[in-house]
Amino acid sequence: MINVEEIRKDFPILNRTIRGRRIVYFDNAATTQKPIQVINSIVEFYTKYNANIHRGLHTLSQEASELYEKAHEVIAKFINAYSWDEIVFCYNTTDAMNIVAYAWGLKNLREGDEILLTIMDHHSTMLPWRNVAKMKNARIKYVDITSDGYLDYNDLENKISDKTRVVVFPVMSNVLGTINDVKRIVKLAHEVDAIVVADGAQSVPHTPTNVRDMGIDFLGFSGHKMLGPTGTGVLWGRRDRLEEMMPFKVGGDTIKDVTLDNVVWHDLPWRFEAGTPNIAGGIGLAEAAKYLMKIGMENVRQHEKELVEYTLKRFEELGEEIIVYGPKNPLDRGGVIAFNIRDLHHHTVGKALDLFGIAVRTGMHCAHPLHYRLGLKGTVRASYYIYNTKEEIDYFIDSLNKIIQLKEALKNQPVEEVCTGT
Amino acid sequence: MINVEEIRKDFPILNRTIRGRRIVYFDNAATTQKPIQVINSIVEFYTKYNANIHRGLHTLSQEASELYEKAHEVIAKFINAYSWDEIVFCYNTTDAMNIVAYAWGLKNLREGDEILLTIMDHHSTMLPWRNVAKMKNARIKYVDITSDGYLDYNDLENKISDKTRVVVFPVMSNVLGTINDVKRIVKLAHEVDAIVVADGAQSVPHTPTNVRDMGIDFLGFSGHKMLGPTGTGVLWGRRDRLEEMMPFKVGGDTIKDVTLDNVVWHDLPWRFEAGTPNIAGGIGLAEAAKYLMKIGMENVRQHEKELVEYTLKRFEELGEEIIVYGPKNPLDRGGVIAFNIRDLHHHTVGKALDLFGIAVRTGMHCAHPLHYRLGLKGTVRASYYIYNTKEEIDYFIDSLNKIIQLKEALKNQPVEEVCTGT
Repeated sequence: MINVEEIRKDFPILNRTIRGRRIVYFDNAATTQKPIQVINSIVEFYTKYNANIHRGLHTLSQEASELYEKAHEVIAKFINAYSWDEIVFCYNTTDAMNIVAYAWGLKNLREGDEILLTIMDHHSTMLPWRNVAKMKNARIKYVDITSDGYLDYNDLENKISDKTRVVVFPVMSNVLGTINDVKRIVKLAHEVDAIVVADGAQSVPHTPTNVRDMGIDFLGFSGHKMLGPTGTGVLWGRRDRLEEMMPFKVGGDTIKDVTLDNVVWHDLPWRFEAGTPNIAGGIGLAEAAKYLMKIGMENVRQHEKELVEYTLKRFEELGEEIIVYGPKNPLDRGGVIAFNIRDLHHHTVGKALDLFGIAVRTGMHCAHPLHYRLGLKGTVRASYYIYNTKEEIDYFIDSLNKIIQLKEALKNQPVEEVCTGT
Repeated sequence: MINVEEIRKDFPILNRTIRGRRIVYFDNAATTQKPIQVINSIVEFYTKYNANIHRGLHTLSQEASELYEKAHEVIAKFINAYSWDEIVFCYNTTDAMNIVAYAWGLKNLREGDEILLTIMDHHSTMLPWRNVAKMKNARIKYVDITSDGYLDYNDLENKISDKTRVVVFPVMSNVLGTINDVKRIVKLAHEVDAIVVADGAQSVPHTPTNVRDMGIDFLGFSGHKMLGPTGTGVLWGRRDRLEEMMPFKVGGDTIKDVTLDNVVWHDLPWRFEAGTPNIAGGIGLAEAAKYLMKIGMENVRQHEKELVEYTLKRFEELGEEIIVYGPKNPLDRGGVIAFNIRDLHHHTVGKALDLFGIAVRTGMHCAHPLHYRLGLKGTVRASYYIYNTKEEIDYFIDSLNKIIQLKEALKNQPVEEVCTGT
């Protein structure tokens, strides 16, 4: 069990009011709020230890280097990596996914090779591989979903073959909430010697992650979606896989030596952390991971499961007025619920909820192909985290009820078809 | 004139003591310290406005989006760009240089094309173009330096030709301090229709920058070297040049639409800002730019010129004991001074200075080819900023004098040949 009341005290922003009402923040799949512990760690770094790293010989640089390296250790522990040097700090999940696609793909893909993506992929995992496939004359295939929002494993089995070199999938869908069967996917992929690239953007912040147990080859996730600072992301890779990547984003600190004719690349993870990294961000991210470990990731998962279960139950009261996407069983989904109110545009619902001080994301959530597959122009997405409560969900349901009551008036509101990202 | 005493009050870290002495921070070319205004802007963002951007429809997202877009405007003003949307926020200068090299180079370079780099380039500008050249069978040439540390313009004129498609150079060398003649380089490059990519990492924080006047095509620089947060960098490009790049680092928020067969890329600058950016960092960077504009970049330059002039003058007292690299004329160089104490290893000097609480960087400063060209294994580099004083330089000279007095004892200290970056 987690003590939400105590947790909420650590998040100053939750006291903010929107139009006179205390904010209800349900946009956690886009980015989470930051506890004071994380904010303080940034302030402390800048006021006491700030220096560039890479073991410059002066005291500040030594201290900063140590803090930054220790941050890698904390993240290694958080996902149960074998060693801290398998942890590459980067800009965000997108960056992690680009690094793998280019650095592994350009070196190892050949003409005619196949890359298996899924129709539920986020653009950030989909597009880099599409770019690389184009450059290497490789072929992309998409694994479909079932009508109830699960990955279609039959389709996966049909599409995977000896030509498949890479299988990419989200551990948890950022729209449907579906938690995919990692071990089943890994088994199929490794049977044909394909590497497995898992998008952990939505899973790592919300469920226990154990890369050793998962059996995957690469995992990418974002710090800012797990209480950490913006501008932080992580690429984890199995050591042998990291070793077989070409350093791609290159420059300062990726090398041991450079002459005009040659380069000796640096050890892991530095050869993939080009230039001065987000030092304060990495340290803040470690603080976020510590915060989550203290709560316990099993408890985080349990809390969100309860919130989702409660939401789905209360949604039933709205009857035909609401359409919910993704698996019906809360055990099979994370703390993300995408829905629509019948006959109302998703942006209209989002704007109306904002009038009640409720923050949700509306649109296609960087998963256009998934929405097109579902025949949708967008959805309203509520996504939860450790500081959300059943009382907030009650208020959310009340607000949705009011919106439904006013549907006829809202229906004809002009709507701008804006792309609202993440 | 700048009021250093007042400025120092804004930098809490300058009160830190190292071994009982107040720190003298001369490692500004690696990264600068952050004023309380910048730190506060980050805290304020996380405690009041934190949300993901891209104009999500809820209030927090609208506010965060506005702050983040305004930050682009501030940076546009800072370098006199034509418009805010020419400003691409990224991770660091290295990232900016990788984006240009891959996104412009892969699309526009052909076999046999030539790329002109300089021997004084930082690895972060050198290595991405070397990667791209390899991929496109293009050829790299290096412009040499003169014996007194200037760029060799005769060599540049000899090496540039109709085959030259790209000219890359640092506006200011991060080792020699040399301020290069931008307009002369641009004229030569544009005569052969080559694009000009300027590395502003060392110049933008320290001298007035006017991209319209410079006539260059691209400029990269780092936020953390100009009082801003770590994990922030900027790529500026002329609009037509940005338009002719392929989106390279791709994913969330780089697109307007994605189907399985097609992508419609987003407007500038978003198509190059893949994934959730360092939102708090960008806002902090704008605060840093505002801080510098309030002081006036002419005044920053003047202050550093005086410090360098004073240092060079006082170095004369050390006679033959000290070897200084780069132009002798303070008008031709920025606030960076690389030197060696005769017969002492640069790391030994750096470690000894740390005992006096003086932070300098020692090594090859991510410019190995330059050091090899000079026949050096490394240098000690002192680099100044707005909070440094002549009194600190006096103390620095005193400390160097003491080190020289103890030379015989220090000479045989074991030294580890570590690469200390940046």
